[in-house]
Amino acid sequence: MRNLFAASAAALSVMAAPVLADNNSPNVFNGNITEDEVFNAEKGWCNALLEISAANMKGGQPAAKKVAENVLDTGYAYDNGGVLFKPTLTVAPQTFRSTREGALAYFVGGDPKFPNDKGFALGDWTKCDVLTDGVLLMGNNAISMGQVTVTNKQGQATTVDKTWGWMKDSQGNLRIVLHHSSLEHTGS
Amino acid sequence: MRNLFAASAAALSVMAAPVLADNNSPNVFNGNITEDEVFNAEKGWCNALLEISAANMKGGQPAAKKVAENVLDTGYAYDNGGVLFKPTLTVAPQTFRSTREGALAYFVGGDPKFPNDKGFALGDWTKCDVLTDGVLLMGNNAISMGQVTVTNKQGQATTVDKTWGWMKDSQGNLRIVLHHSSLEHTGS
Amino acid sequence: MRNLFAASAAALSVMAAPVLADNNSPNVFNGNITEDEVFNAEKGWCNALLEISAANMKGGQPAAKKVAENVLDTGYAYDNGGVLFKPTLTVAPQTFRSTREGALAYFVGGDPKFPNDKGFALGDWTKCDVLTDGVLLMGNNAISMGQVTVTNKQGQATTVDKTWGWMKDSQGNLRIVLHHSSLEHTGS
Amino acid sequence: MRNLFAASAAALSVMAAPVLADNNSPNVFNGNITEDEVFNAEKGWCNALLEISAANMKGGQPAAKKVAENVLDTGYAYDNGGVLFKPTLTVAPQTFRSTREGALAYFVGGDPKFPNDKGFALGDWTKCDVLTDGVLLMGNNAISMGQVTVTNKQGQATTVDKTWGWMKDSQGNLRIVLHHSSLEHTGS
Repeated sequence: MRNLFAASAAALSVMAAPVLADNNSPNVFNGNITEDEVFNAEKGWCNALLEISAANMKGGQPAAKKVAENVLDTGYAYDNGGVLFKPTLTVAPQTFRSTREGALAYFVGGDPKFPNDKGFALGDWTKCDVLTDGVLLMGNNAISMGQVTVTNKQGQATTVDKTWGWMKDSQGNLRIVLHHSSLEHTGS
Repeated sequence: MRNLFAASAAALSVMAAPVLADNNSPNVFNGNITEDEVFNAEKGWCNALLEISAANMKGGQPAAKKVAENVLDTGYAYDNGGVLFKPTLTVAPQTFRSTREGALAYFVGGDPKFPNDKGFALGDWTKCDVLTDGVLLMGNNAISMGQVTVTNKQGQATTVDKTWGWMKDSQGNLRIVLHHSSLEHTGS
Repeated sequence: MRNLFAASAAALSVMAAPVLADNNSPNVFNGNITEDEVFNAEKGWCNALLEISAANMKGGQPAAKKVAENVLDTGYAYDNGGVLFKPTLTVAPQTFRSTREGALAYFVGGDPKFPNDKGFALGDWTKCDVLTDGVLLMGNNAISMGQVTVTNKQGQATTVDKTWGWMKDSQGNLRIVLHHSSLEHTGS
Repeated sequence: MRNLFAASAAALSVMAAPVLADNNSPNVFNGNITEDEVFNAEKGWCNALLEISAANMKGGQPAAKKVAENVLDTGYAYDNGGVLFKPTLTVAPQTFRSTREGALAYFVGGDPKFPNDKGFALGDWTKCDVLTDGVLLMGNNAISMGQVTVTNKQGQATTVDKTWGWMKDSQGNLRIVLHHSSLEHTGS
């Protein structure tokens, strides 16, 4: 299956692979993540959410689940070292989702092992915007923090505070190693 | 001033500096953060919160502010590259605190530029416990995620979901480069 | 084919993959290279050289070439980002071998594009010892420097000064990203 | 004293420190070493060698030693984690110089503890050129490999094969953590 993040973000196709030297210039092997790769990957996450939601609206939960599995397999690092994940709406004692199974349940529900998960990505989302507050670039890892606003087909918008940690995999695509999402504090 | 994190966590005094070789063994220069250093730094954060709170109970906000400044200068990386900080109780448009000034206002209040900040560390906290869910070790950076429960002198406990990013500074102490804290979602 | 480095160094089979938590302890995802992994990989390089040499003594250059290809494919990072390689005995203008093809020619010769390469690994080596002087550990990269002494079946020993750079690949095996080897300076 | 590397390479003054955001764009904290920073630091090393040599020609070994000390203190990482150093002309058992003292002896001689060191930088060098073959960029570390040709005032040129490992320090300057230098192999 194609990589949704790469599909939605052309810059992600920039490989970690060598820029081969011509006769006059050095070989440069660069594994560092750039600022633009982070911004594109953030947009890629939004697009992935919208694709899952669209699949659900068109084909129901089974169709959404299929898309979500691809998102997890290509955009998260469950098979590339591990993921720390605190989704927006999980409740104790299943707050954290360090397994692909727990992440999938959060996005599309339908897993009796996670009875409180209704499927966040099934929310008929039709719009998703990222406002990045800050980025840390640390070699082939990066962290970004900001707000994401998702809007459903009824026009209702929800804003969450979000931190993502990224790694660049051996194909040069960014994957999520950290995801902490929380509802905005209202102060009341 | 002493480094509160180091003071409260003996393992943090393990230097990044060389383990000098005797005649028979190689020099090993190791800048990597270990699991135990992360656990100790997490406890160090709790101890720092309790020290600010204790200073306030004894000497009022000015005393607490002095301790908080030391915590920020020795335990955060505002002077070592930058910090991404989403505190538990901030509200838009001042949600994120990428400056030392904004972080100080959050912890001890009293800054007219941050009128909604009442001073989180002035909450008469007498107990602070960390339950770590996961740790990512990435050279001289690390990320940890889990829950922190703070209890005040009336015995009221509050649990927050927390992600910390750490770096090891040139003295071998851990500093916070990322801090995302959010109230537990109740599901209602 | 099996990974020669892993074969010769049991510790290399320690995966970068998660150490799964039981119910009471955190998940720890650790991609850092340890001192012992470096020492084992250095021994693995020696063993790989001896295997190529043994294959040559038994089956001639074609047999040696087959082993050398496996060594390069499993122990060097030509397909994992790139390699900087200055072999001991190369001469200008083909001093540096940034391609797998150039590295293979150095080890087993027989490539008309590299006419000065006689095949270093065809030297009837029966012994190979590493004396490490120093190691730098930098997350999933490491550098080690020291001397390697190779002895042939006639008992003649040659000592070279050597620097290796290592990366840990997605299977948790170390691969060479840097290799600078030079004959000892005699002072005359 | 000023940092010779920074002095000779303006790009090195680019700080690791935050690029502060205006109201519309995110804070980006970038600690990664760039290709151009490596090229500038390589030139900086050449300039440093020429400055030591010039100081010697003008003021003798004591003047050269003073410059060399500054070069080591600002351009090497002896106080920032450690250095692996195999100079071009050292002989066993003092081949490797993991201490500032041993490095200083190599550059300017005059140290009875290192009786074979005549002072490489006292060679009346008036020209120093770098031809980079390859660069590995790995976050706040980098490695470069290539050839350096030094020419003395009599016009005699010597070419060496060289590998440098770099780190970016807390002031944003590059420092040498690895230095392997060797005379070209002549093939005879």
